[in-house]
This record gives sequence, structure tokens and C-alpha cells, in this order.
Amino acid sequence: MFIRHVRRLNVEKNYRFKISYDGTKYHGWESKSQVDTVEGRIEAVLTRMAERPVDIKGAGRTDAGVHARGMVANGLIDTTLSPSEIKAYANSYLPMDICIDEVAVAGDRFHARLNAKGKVYRYTLYVGEGKPVFDRNYVWAVPDGGRIHIEEMRQAAIYLVGEHDFKAFCGNNKIKKSTVRTIYDIRIVRRGDYVEMDFHGSGFLQNMVRILVGTLVEVGQGRRKPSDMPYIIESLDRQQAGITAPPQGLCLMKVEYH
Amino acid sequence: MFIRHVRRLNVEKNYRFKISYDGTKYHGWESKSQVDTVEGRIEAVLTRMAERPVDIKGAGRTDAGVHARGMVANGLIDTTLSPSEIKAYANSYLPMDICIDEVAVAGDRFHARLNAKGKVYRYTLYVGEGKPVFDRNYVWAVPDGGRIHIEEMRQAAIYLVGEHDFKAFCGNNKIKKSTVRTIYDIRIVRRGDYVEMDFHGSGFLQNMVRILVGTLVEVGQGRRKPSDMPYIIESLDRQQAGITAPPQGLCLMKVEYH
Repeated sequence: MFIRHVRRLNVEKNYRFKISYDGTKYHGWESKSQVDTVEGRIEAVLTRMAERPVDIKGAGRTDAGVHARGMVANGLIDTTLSPSEIKAYANSYLPMDICIDEVAVAGDRFHARLNAKGKVYRYTLYVGEGKPVFDRNYVWAVPDGGRIHIEEMRQAAIYLVGEHDFKAFCGNNKIKKSTVRTIYDIRIVRRGDYVEMDFHGSGFLQNMVRILVGTLVEVGQGRRKPSDMPYIIESLDRQQAGITAPPQGLCLMKVEYH
Repeated sequence: MFIRHVRRLNVEKNYRFKISYDGTKYHGWESKSQVDTVEGRIEAVLTRMAERPVDIKGAGRTDAGVHARGMVANGLIDTTLSPSEIKAYANSYLPMDICIDEVAVAGDRFHARLNAKGKVYRYTLYVGEGKPVFDRNYVWAVPDGGRIHIEEMRQAAIYLVGEHDFKAFCGNNKIKKSTVRTIYDIRIVRRGDYVEMDFHGSGFLQNMVRILVGTLVEVGQGRRKPSDMPYIIESLDRQQAGITAPPQGLCLMKVEYH
């Protein structure tokens, strides 16, 4: 008993996780009572493993239906299992639509959200003639997508790169914190019947990538001009920007740290 | 009324359809009362369009959970709509997991099943270290897949090519019709964490591709030798062959006609 007691006091370590998930059937990342979330599922499995409550922090909060291939989270756990044993244990109990890809011991001060220096989100459009039968939960099938003008979207995207107040692209109109963010790069690539839009930035506001996509798609459809973008940004008015693109096209690809 | 009557008597044409579907949530292809099937969904939409019962015939019957990218079906329909209008109508009313990719007027004698001269099925294995989070409904995640021996599977597959009595690989042990079929080619290709197995043959018995896959995977796992294959074939005994691979890895890619 004495040894066990000492162990419990001493070996709680800060673990860092890299996680993939299909968000289709979850109410987003963040743990909430009463609803099924990705964070909630992972915490439940780690709690079972550690035999005491485990609380993890994710680098960001993805919305319901949004996916991740590179979510990062951290949490304190007291366990004698090695990182690879933790990973094997968790994956065997997690459902097929959530996978922990990496587990590592992190420094005591590592915090997945506060230490994040950049993120890459990918939004995928389907612009083919048919229906995205096998990808329907991972793309936005844009109406009349075959006529979309990618080059116009790229021209519009140039105005978004850099440090701006992105309040016009924030889904939370009661936000009080700074809405200034830096977008390092936006890449728009057509691959067959798909258009991949990669957004690399310091961080993103609530629904920001989806509103950026909705606005850029309206440019691609000829309903806005690339040169409208500076006015939308300067307005700081959500009403001036485009629609919020649906969640299922969005995937958190990467979280960057120093 | 006279004109409408004449039209009804004269313009029933035989249409040929090429269809993709995600079979995850359907009880297979074939229409059955009480259960949700792909054929049943398509017949319901075409019946609504034609304002009278439409019956279609598929080139084959896929099991519950099996997919298609190239199913062919035919059916007699009396409509003034053009093939491209039929396609647009059907796709707008069909769910997102079923798409009619082509509609054409066929000869009166065209029958999708009886005229089929060959079929290509693809079975996909996941052999990576993690979990196939985004493909879980389209692959079989083989236990300990990282150690699978592809070359041994290829050697075993050579014995299957040609005309054989495949009774040992038939899921229906009460079958009375001939169980002789010809396999033209089996291609096994590794692509990253996936193994694609393409079976091209004259036709396939019930569950035949899934039992062939189950047996070949046992060879890949070292539980059988490639040289066991002739004995399994000659036994005509289902008990001698391997397990029936799960349905979700299977997809009907193509149906061939003269």
C-alpha cells in the first residue's frame, strides 16, 4: 500500500496525444454533459484506463460534423503503462471513428491550446457532375460546382493573407476578445472532381474557416468579385461576408508548436 | 386522352443504368419487402417519375454492406423524359449514398444479368498500424495487417485463375446449379496502408469473392501455404476454404457486356 501511495503521488505525467477522428456522428470535439463528443469519448477511455478521472485539453474546438487528422491534446495521467501501451489500450476501446495516432510524454508546462502557434485546416469541395457517394461526409458538394472559377477564388484569397481583424468572418457576434488573426497562406488546388482549400494561420475564430470558404465559393460562382474582399474585411460585419460552409468539408490537419 | 393512350402503348423503352452506391446502410441490392435495399430505392424513385410501377433488374446481387461503383441494371419505362432528364430526376430524389451515373436507351433484348459476360470486383484491405478512421466502411482492417505477405497471396491467387468448379468458395451449400466459373485475372496491389485485390471473372457465386479474400488473407498471414490452394479447390468443400471476409471491403467495379 505504501508503494502504491508513493507511486500515485509521483508519477502523474503530462501526455501529448495526436488524434484523428471522423466527426460525422459527434457533437463536436469539446466534452459536454448529455451529448456524445470526441473529447468525451477519449476522456472516458483514459479514465477507465487510469482508474481515476482524466481531463484532456484539445488544441481547438471543432464543430459537430468537422473532422481531424491532426488534433493535438494533452492531459495529466497517473499510469504505469508506457506511451505505446496507452495508445494500444485507448485505440482498442475507442470506436472505429476515433484513433489516437501518437502518444508521448510532454513537458509539465505543455498545453495543447495555449502553446499552439499555428494550425492548418483543409476544406474540400466536390465539384463533379455526379454525387460524392463515398465522400459525402467529407466534402461540400457545391451546387453547379462544375462551373466554379478556381482562379477567381485564388485572387480573392490573396486579400485574406496577412494579419487582419477577421471579425466579419466570426460566427460568434458577441465575441469580446481580439478578433485579429494572421493567415500565413491559403492554397487552393483542384484534384479531379475535388477542390482542396488549405488554410494555414496563427489561429482561427469560431466558424472562421467555414465562413471564409462560403465567401470564396461565392466568388468562384461569380456572385462576388475578388476585389470585394478588402471591403468585407474592413466592414468587420458578419453580414457582409458569405454563408457558413457546411461542417463536413472541414478537417483540422495539423497543429504547430515551437 | 387518345394521344396519351397511344403514347402509353408505344413508348415503353428499355433503359440501361450505371449506378454507384455506398451499401453501408442497405440490406443489399435486391428489392425485398420490409427492408431497405438499393434496388428498392431506385425502383421507388423511377415509379414516382413514371407514375406506374417500374421494375429493374441488376447485373448481380450485392450483399448487405457491399458497395458498387459500376452496377448495371435495366428496366422498361414509359416516359417522355430524355435519358439525361431521367438521370437528373432520379439523382435529385435518391439519397446521397446512391447515384445513377449513366442512363441510356438499350436494345429491347438487353438484360443486365443474363447478358453480363464478366465482372470486376475490388476488395480492399487496410494493413496500416492505426485505424482506418475515414475508410472504415470501405475496407477490412486485417488484424496484424502490417505483417501480411503480399507475394505469398499472389502465388496462391495464381492457382485460382482459370476455369474451375468453385464450390469450395460458395456461401450457399445447397446450390444445385453449376458452380463452375472462370476467373480471368486476380491482381493484388499494395498502395501505402492498403492492399487492393481485383477479381476479374465470368461471374461469381454467392459470397465467392469474400471467401476467396478470406482464404488469400490466411495465406498472407502464414496460416496456409500457396500450394494448399489446388487441394482446397479440388475438395469442393466449403469447410476447406478460409473465412468469409467482411462485406464492407467489397465493391462491384465493372460489369462487362459484348
